[in-house]
Amino acid sequence: LKIFALNSNRPLAEKIAKTVGVPLGKTSVDRFSDGEIRINIEESIRGDNIFIIQSTSAPVNDNLMELLIMVDALRRASAGTINLVIPYYGYARQDRKARSREPITAKLVANMIQKDGVDRVVTLDLHAAQIQGFFDIPVDHLMGAPLLADHFINEGFGSDDVVVSPDHGGVSRARALAEFLKAPIAIIDKRRPKANVAEIMNIIGDVAGKRCLMIDDMIDTAGTITLGAQALIDAGAKEVYACCTHPVLSGPAIERIKKSPIKQLVVTDTIQLPAEKQIEKIQQVSVGPLIGDAI
Amino acid sequence: LKIFALNSNRPLAEKIAKTVGVPLGKTSVDRFSDGEIRINIEESIRGDNIFIIQSTSAPVNDNLMELLIMVDALRRASAGTINLVIPYYGYARQDRKARSREPITAKLVANMIQKDGVDRVVTLDLHAAQIQGFFDIPVDHLMGAPLLADHFINEGFGSDDVVVSPDHGGVSRARALAEFLKAPIAIIDKRRPKANVAEIMNIIGDVAGKRCLMIDDMIDTAGTITLGAQALIDAGAKEVYACCTHPVLSGPAIERIKKSPIKQLVVTDTIQLPAEKQIEKIQQVSVGPLIGDAI
Ligand SMILES: Nc1ncnc2c1ncn2[C@@H]1O[C@H](COP(=O)(O)O)[C@@H](O)[C@H]1O
Ligand SMILES: Nc1ncnc2c1ncn2[C@@H]1O[C@H](COP(=O)(O)O)[C@@H](O)[C@H]1O
Repeated sequence: LKIFALNSNRPLAEKIAKTVGVPLGKTSVDRFSDGEIRINIEESIRGDNIFIIQSTSAPVNDNLMELLIMVDALRRASAGTINLVIPYYGYARQDRKARSREPITAKLVANMIQKDGVDRVVTLDLHAAQIQGFFDIPVDHLMGAPLLADHFINEGFGSDDVVVSPDHGGVSRARALAEFLKAPIAIIDKRRPKANVAEIMNIIGDVAGKRCLMIDDMIDTAGTITLGAQALIDAGAKEVYACCTHPVLSGPAIERIKKSPIKQLVVTDTIQLPAEKQIEKIQQVSVGPLIGDAI
Repeated sequence: LKIFALNSNRPLAEKIAKTVGVPLGKTSVDRFSDGEIRINIEESIRGDNIFIIQSTSAPVNDNLMELLIMVDALRRASAGTINLVIPYYGYARQDRKARSREPITAKLVANMIQKDGVDRVVTLDLHAAQIQGFFDIPVDHLMGAPLLADHFINEGFGSDDVVVSPDHGGVSRARALAEFLKAPIAIIDKRRPKANVAEIMNIIGDVAGKRCLMIDDMIDTAGTITLGAQALIDAGAKEVYACCTHPVLSGPAIERIKKSPIKQLVVTDTIQLPAEKQIEKIQQVSVGPLIGDAI
């Protein structure tokens, strides 16, 4: 068993390798002068079972191509099996045609990955669990919720608190977390009465005087989660916490979180956070041991 | 027949569309907040024969993904045939394993393109003509040399001048240009006597007192072409001109060309030149009519 890290998330790869108890494989992954990816595998891998650790987070196209080129190099060097660990699977939101003439990029990426001799994929909290079916090869679909639950149980959260889904799409995720905490759930139901009129946030469930814990699979621009947090406060919630598996945190996300009533946001390290996104309100828990145990 | 432009080279796409006599198809190709590509085809294309114009020049991974996502969207929208015009085919230099455990990215890209329902590829001056064989679908392989020859014939070049190949790999390209000009050829033969010792440039053929015209398929960092130009001057050449199909021009290229004895560099527009690369010494001729006639 050999583990290779590409460029998206080397700190996580190191944690995974440490859990498994092997050093990271020797490779260099850099760029030619014109920006084309240059990969050099610097040790023999003939017949070995290889695990590549790479999130397809931003820059998504570069990270995806690194992954595919690495697979090509490994296959041509007669690797035994090739297993991809993709902690964050990019393009997951483009998983269906919501309108005419849209691509289904999540399937395109699945095709690229599996048509090239990959044996197995390990990933966490796909935006839609159906994306597993885009693959014909085995997909291990791990969950961040138990890890996030552990964190909040250690901080004293439990049956007196409420787990909140920020939209109706995330109810089952909220239920899973609530079961760990033995807490009730609530749901924020957004309705837009007319086009070009602001959404109305309706809270289903009892949050008055309570400590609320919102959960989502990913937080991207943080619009949903920060507006939801304000709606909870307006409905009489005592405090609002939030958590997610994938901290995408693009565009206005950090500013919005800073300004929001959210007391603390707990995320995992499926996506590496650059220094400017490591603000006091955000705390990271590692999925390294979870992934390490799964491979 | 419908022609769609993606983001790499819209000016060329417009020239192609003008030659064919159709307007460019309506589409928007931009980015979500996190950098993922968003494509919207804004007119019906059911049953149509589609041509997509996209060079996989820098940023190569973004341009390649735009192309693949566009193909996915077109196929799902029931396009009749899907034809890719890839004036500059990126990753072409990674076309063989020069060392152990290297990828063959030019083949990986060919697989990605053809496994997704593409009917035909049109491209120009592949770095190695063998890349045609990486595809199982028809590849129209167009040549920039006639166009470059026309330009220099118009400028009065002919049998008194010498066409020079900057290395032994480019001799057949130099011969093709020389036949148009009815000119003799010369070859720059680089030898490195020992490792870590500067290369010696040996000129095969007669250049003393002559006007020299160097030709290559692409100019990337411009090391080969500018050192070659100096070697020609040192060997008594009167003047040095240069031309290529693909102006990659990365890293130190522009500075090197400015400082070199090259009087003029003529390139085509397979790759769009940003303003800072449009210097006086560089002149562009368009492959738009050539491609337009081929499709
Ligand atoms: N990277 C992205 N950022 C924001 N929205 C996206 C992204 N990718 C896809 N979408 C859109 O998000 C919607 C799907 O999100 P959801 O309803 O949460 O599954 C679709 O309308 C997609 O067009
Ligand atoms: N984008 C690139 N820039 C510079 N060199 C490259 C690039 N891609 C591949 N190569 C290398 O160029 C060599 C092939 O170039 P050539 O000998 O001209 O066919 C191989 O050793 C490749 O590793």
